[in-house]
Amino acid sequence: MSPSFQVRFGIIGCASIARKFCRTMNLCPNATLHGVASRTLAKAQAFATENSLPPTTVLYGSYEALLDDPDIDAVYIPLPTSLHLPWAVATARKKKHVLLEKPSACNVTELDQIIFACEENGVQFMDGTMWVHHPRSQVMADFFSDPQRFGQLKSIQTCFNYFFGYDFVENNIRAQPDLDPLGALSDSGWYCIMACLFTANYQLPKFATALKNPVYNKAGVVISCGASLLWENGALATFNCSFLAHLTMDFAVVGTNGSLNVTDFVIPYEEKSASLSILSGSNFSELALGWTEKPIEQVVKTELPQEVFMVKEFSTLVDGIKNHGLSPEKKWPTNTRKTQLIIDAIAASISRGFESVEVY
Amino acid sequence: MSPSFQVRFGIIGCASIARKFCRTMNLCPNATLHGVASRTLAKAQAFATENSLPPTTVLYGSYEALLDDPDIDAVYIPLPTSLHLPWAVATARKKKHVLLEKPSACNVTELDQIIFACEENGVQFMDGTMWVHHPRSQVMADFFSDPQRFGQLKSIQTCFNYFFGYDFVENNIRAQPDLDPLGALSDSGWYCIMACLFTANYQLPKFATALKNPVYNKAGVVISCGASLLWENGALATFNCSFLAHLTMDFAVVGTNGSLNVTDFVIPYEEKSASLSILSGSNFSELALGWTEKPIEQVVKTELPQEVFMVKEFSTLVDGIKNHGLSPEKKWPTNTRKTQLIIDAIAASISRGFESVEVY
Repeated sequence: MSPSFQVRFGIIGCASIARKFCRTMNLCPNATLHGVASRTLAKAQAFATENSLPPTTVLYGSYEALLDDPDIDAVYIPLPTSLHLPWAVATARKKKHVLLEKPSACNVTELDQIIFACEENGVQFMDGTMWVHHPRSQVMADFFSDPQRFGQLKSIQTCFNYFFGYDFVENNIRAQPDLDPLGALSDSGWYCIMACLFTANYQLPKFATALKNPVYNKAGVVISCGASLLWENGALATFNCSFLAHLTMDFAVVGTNGSLNVTDFVIPYEEKSASLSILSGSNFSELALGWTEKPIEQVVKTELPQEVFMVKEFSTLVDGIKNHGLSPEKKWPTNTRKTQLIIDAIAASISRGFESVEVY
Repeated sequence: MSPSFQVRFGIIGCASIARKFCRTMNLCPNATLHGVASRTLAKAQAFATENSLPPTTVLYGSYEALLDDPDIDAVYIPLPTSLHLPWAVATARKKKHVLLEKPSACNVTELDQIIFACEENGVQFMDGTMWVHHPRSQVMADFFSDPQRFGQLKSIQTCFNYFFGYDFVENNIRAQPDLDPLGALSDSGWYCIMACLFTANYQLPKFATALKNPVYNKAGVVISCGASLLWENGALATFNCSFLAHLTMDFAVVGTNGSLNVTDFVIPYEEKSASLSILSGSNFSELALGWTEKPIEQVVKTELPQEVFMVKEFSTLVDGIKNHGLSPEKKWPTNTRKTQLIIDAIAASISRGFESVEVY
């Protein structure tokens, strides 16, 4: 890694999540915000004012103008899902690295075009799932891969729910048929599905089955649903994702020798400290009056928020490609694609009356 | 309640759970162990020695002998499930109150005969699900019925898993086709299903659907499976129950305004103190950097273990019937029957290729 190298980022689209990204840029040691594009210059200016961007930030009145700027290395794309295909492909074709908000695309066919464009143009692809970059996730991965403490994966129960009001449910870009046709399944379900894959060391399940009966908004977009995933080895995951329930991010995993519980896996309660509860080798005590072992809470302290770890990792990869002749890291598009494949399978299961759909 | 009245209990069958019951008898203020029956007197004597029962304990060489003893008011029946029908009915016909270990019966048709016999003979029926009698459960029920803190029920995720080794999986009475034909579904699944009913204020779900693919032992008994339950109002529950995974008893409930997490709902980690984690009215903090509220852990201290609360409640009802002209409390057989109905529906779903089965 080049110590002084800074990846110069552009943002296309002024979504509210882009506000968080501006803060990330300030905190990230190897990235800097070069410019922001909106569909009009006035909108970009309003965004710059709102977020107190320094006057050196370049503002563009069109996405194309930002993509044409040779001083931009990488582009963060927080556009509505249905716009990912055209703009991620356009970004890659301009030889700019792609940090794409999740859900990655409307379906895996679209995503494959994005990944192909990135490969063809030698640029890094990464989706915007932040939690996998949190140091706590490494502690979890270490536990899941420990044959003594965890053993073999048996089951996962996870959920990501929130409620931003009925106006959100009907009108937000996450619940519009032409912008994010899979609604809660692809928005909050994304995290649950990736959590399941993460636990299974990114091995694909054999079957995905939607649970009866999803809830739809007036426009026909899923705003609440659940599904189960079944692996070849018998491991079973179930998850719920909803725009209609209290904020919840449960992640509970059971192996043959141990279990793990986290209740804030998507975004930790606090920025600089995240905990996980781990239990190993417990059994009923004499006469089943209690347990021989109780869960141990581990606290993982961090200097940086998880989104900064994400951008730092992405920028390190960009540095490697730009300055050290390395190839793009394929694990990121591969993991994204597996997540999208499962979303597609669950959507297919819903449309086929909740029958099991093979994932491949 | 008569302050000095003590219900005189008999135990038929010397299952290992009966050892815990002897201890319960010592701790319960309104119950006393009068006698123990086994299929031979030698077995009953061995059980008495093993459990240091006082010499005043009457020992019987047959179940019939115990049921014929006029000094016995109530019988605790920890026999294998397939023996519940004949012995619970015989107990009721001898006008003795019935405390029946779960699962209540092999199916609801059998259970209905037991409940009918209890009603016809004016005796109390209660199944042996201990956790619902723990004071913590009342705190949970209060939360679920609070329209401000919890709101409307949206989803439940629960599991009860344990692993006692492969010999247990193949040979224990809980996994024999002629003794407990539904294996893990009726043994550990019982608790999950009752937890779902408890949360829904014992309103039956509309549909029960088994998840693909249960695991069977060599004799063809389910030793690991999962299912989903769907209520008319859209509330959704999923659960896993298994004899093949590390000891886990998760119970996670989400409403519109709050959520609850307990990780030891069947048997608390400790006997005199049980905790629950409750969160209400939380949302993402500014820029979704964290949460506005964090869960609050509530600790419920108790003087007595949960099984003693169960026997105390049962004995109070027996006292009411015997000494105060009261009728048996119908809520207990009603709740048991609903749990058994759901087990039957899930078993039917498994045998019909995992299709949804209406529960009624």
